[in-house]
Amino acid sequence: MTLDEAKGTLAACREEIDGIDRRLVALLNERSRVVERIGAVKANMDMPVYEPKREDMVYANIMAANGGPIPDDSVRRIFERIIDEMRTLQRTRMGAK
Amino acid sequence: MTLDEAKGTLAACREEIDGIDRRLVALLNERSRVVERIGAVKANMDMPVYEPKREDMVYANIMAANGGPIPDDSVRRIFERIIDEMRTLQRTRMGAK
Repeated sequence: MTLDEAKGTLAACREEIDGIDRRLVALLNERSRVVERIGAVKANMDMPVYEPKREDMVYANIMAANGGPIPDDSVRRIFERIIDEMRTLQRTRMGAK
Repeated sequence: MTLDEAKGTLAACREEIDGIDRRLVALLNERSRVVERIGAVKANMDMPVYEPKREDMVYANIMAANGGPIPDDSVRRIFERIIDEMRTLQRTRMGAK
């Protein structure tokens, strides 16, 4: 592989990553909108916001979907961050109302 | 809204979230495979693994793609976790070779 070939491959890979990242951002926001709908229903019905059993199901679904190469514990840490950020957003929105 | 209606809406929302999560997991693994290809090219060419300028571009792309409702700083924290986990995976793989 020449240096020029390496640079060309890297550029193509980076374009691919940028495209994947844009799709990830869109999906994260889509998820956030559904979480908001759930929050609204729960607030309306005076239902508890945090349900540990449902959270277990979320992680079970994620682990079952993971075919690698990312290890399960890495995927879990990524989703812990995602879920935590969405919970914070919910709290901010509900506090603002 | 009756309790039954609320439960029905919640069930539908949760099914939607599970579907989104499965797509997120698939995309994260797709991203990871591209990162691996980059790592292989760099190892082959003795190029530096960490390039701060490229990282800035990754975040710029993500921020530009973010239309909300998730705030920019939340999206950034989520991607910091994603990028960190992928870097760890790269290090483990390269160490194993």
